[in-house]
Amino acid sequence: MTIAYIAASTGVSVPTVSKVINGRSGVAAETRARVEAAIREFGYQRSAPPTRSNLVELVFDQLDDMWGVQIIRGVERMARQQRVGVVLTELGSGRGGTRYWIDDVIDRRPDCLVTVAQLGEEQRSQLRARGIPFVVFDPTVELPDGVPFVGATNWAGGRAATRHLIGQGHRRIALISSADRILSCRARLDGYRSAMEAAGLPVDGDLVVQAGLSVDGGRAAALELLRGPQPPTAIFASNDLQAVGVYQAARVVGLRIPADLSVVGFDDLPIAALVDPPLTTVHQPLVEMAVAATELALALGRGERAPRTGIELATTLTVRQSTATRVG
Amino acid sequence: MTIAYIAASTGVSVPTVSKVINGRSGVAAETRARVEAAIREFGYQRSAPPTRSNLVELVFDQLDDMWGVQIIRGVERMARQQRVGVVLTELGSGRGGTRYWIDDVIDRRPDCLVTVAQLGEEQRSQLRARGIPFVVFDPTVELPDGVPFVGATNWAGGRAATRHLIGQGHRRIALISSADRILSCRARLDGYRSAMEAAGLPVDGDLVVQAGLSVDGGRAAALELLRGPQPPTAIFASNDLQAVGVYQAARVVGLRIPADLSVVGFDDLPIAALVDPPLTTVHQPLVEMAVAATELALALGRGERAPRTGIELATTLTVRQSTATRVG
Repeated sequence: MTIAYIAASTGVSVPTVSKVINGRSGVAAETRARVEAAIREFGYQRSAPPTRSNLVELVFDQLDDMWGVQIIRGVERMARQQRVGVVLTELGSGRGGTRYWIDDVIDRRPDCLVTVAQLGEEQRSQLRARGIPFVVFDPTVELPDGVPFVGATNWAGGRAATRHLIGQGHRRIALISSADRILSCRARLDGYRSAMEAAGLPVDGDLVVQAGLSVDGGRAAALELLRGPQPPTAIFASNDLQAVGVYQAARVVGLRIPADLSVVGFDDLPIAALVDPPLTTVHQPLVEMAVAATELALALGRGERAPRTGIELATTLTVRQSTATRVG
Repeated sequence: MTIAYIAASTGVSVPTVSKVINGRSGVAAETRARVEAAIREFGYQRSAPPTRSNLVELVFDQLDDMWGVQIIRGVERMARQQRVGVVLTELGSGRGGTRYWIDDVIDRRPDCLVTVAQLGEEQRSQLRARGIPFVVFDPTVELPDGVPFVGATNWAGGRAATRHLIGQGHRRIALISSADRILSCRARLDGYRSAMEAAGLPVDGDLVVQAGLSVDGGRAAALELLRGPQPPTAIFASNDLQAVGVYQAARVVGLRIPADLSVVGFDDLPIAALVDPPLTTVHQPLVEMAVAATELALALGRGERAPRTGIELATTLTVRQSTATRVG
């Protein structure tokens, strides 16, 4: 089975078939798919995988949030244990400067990737072509079956946060959610609903609002909630930054936390312990998740079969001083 | 000039001389120095530098503070422009797990290093042996002449912060400093003294206290200051984490910020804008410093002569709401 044969049978030029085989860019998605199908159909044997470079690639879309460091620490920890170097890339939101990124990755011949960024099917296909396995960290969208990932138990975390507030006597508990397309936030929302239902509490449509996962988003949403005709006595924010925004909104309308308003966040960033009062929040084990993702990716890179393709690590509720028993 | 000749003339075995020439570990420091001296004396030509790997190594001691991400972003930005990958290493405080680190670096043949960690003379010597240039980011100790570095104008920043408080009418201005051995903090201390002297204000020994560069350190130091017989009306903390500790101490003793106590920090971490009230602080241009350090390191890696060996980028005072005119 030769490249020329695949080229002839698919009606694609030899250099283009070669590009697909070697995971290079510059091939139309449709053409790449057709050639990949022919490779599978005819059982073409790609050349032996390149030698190990002892590198793992760690890829972010944006690094400017606070959990970046914790993920890096976890990846570093496992990579160091196995004497593998960590190559870090921030693709950036525009991705304009990353046109060559995937080609550079393929040139570096890493053992594997851990990706916090959302890779396109095109890029996944190029990596597969070169036999470079990847693990998705905390997927924000639904993945095709079989794509390895490590996440957290977002649904259970949302449920635990809500149950904590219910246990303190709160009945009007608001949720600041995020865009529906973010999978983890949808799971947190469903966890909230589940806990409310289990307690026999109605989920008032006015009590669930969407906002960006930022301080500004949280503040705007909380102002809307707190200025409504029937304000909540507790707010569960979908992340800690939103919760900081809730703190700001409470100041604006003159409510004390936790005396007048209880607040729960999600993530347990370092900032959660530093704000006043310290924030009750759902702890995501980011370091451990990163350790697990790297261990899995490196195992796949050595050609081992993954014992499991996807893992969710347990969240835990960290109770600090922003929540209190409802008074009145 | 052969390796055997150097071995014979220094009384060191051939394999050991070879290790020194190739920058390998496992040679006593004294032996390495002797062989390096002989190499220089006899004008031994090392083999041609290895081909470029298009990698820059970024090295931290500890990554668990908040400015790590900003440094990484700056390094990423410049590396991406030049299509160079970034290998990130956290040595860890114990450094127990990093026995092989320098050998692994040398195996990877990076174009250059940017190091936030303090490298020992041993490691610097190994890098020089392989012709791998390095740039020190924000040096915490005095460097030998000629070692390239990028820092910030700490002295000028300390001066500006203190002058701001003096301009608001404060006279009893305390400084929470850090261990004397940290060069940047000594510069901030001297900037404080300089501004006080320029205003004709005495520097009361009781007003300068040393503390760790952490929230806990800042809180303990501030409690000591605020419970003293003549408490200050303003506190300048050596970094933002200490300033957050000052906030906590003010709460404990019942002082309002800025009505009763003005507070200035240093660094301008993301947290500075999020605390209540938002913190006035000296902005360190960490991203720009990292961009400059990487640009310099990559230029050295291409064999260019550095236009300058050391640079300090200007700090700027960011005035927020934690400082106010002294009342009474």
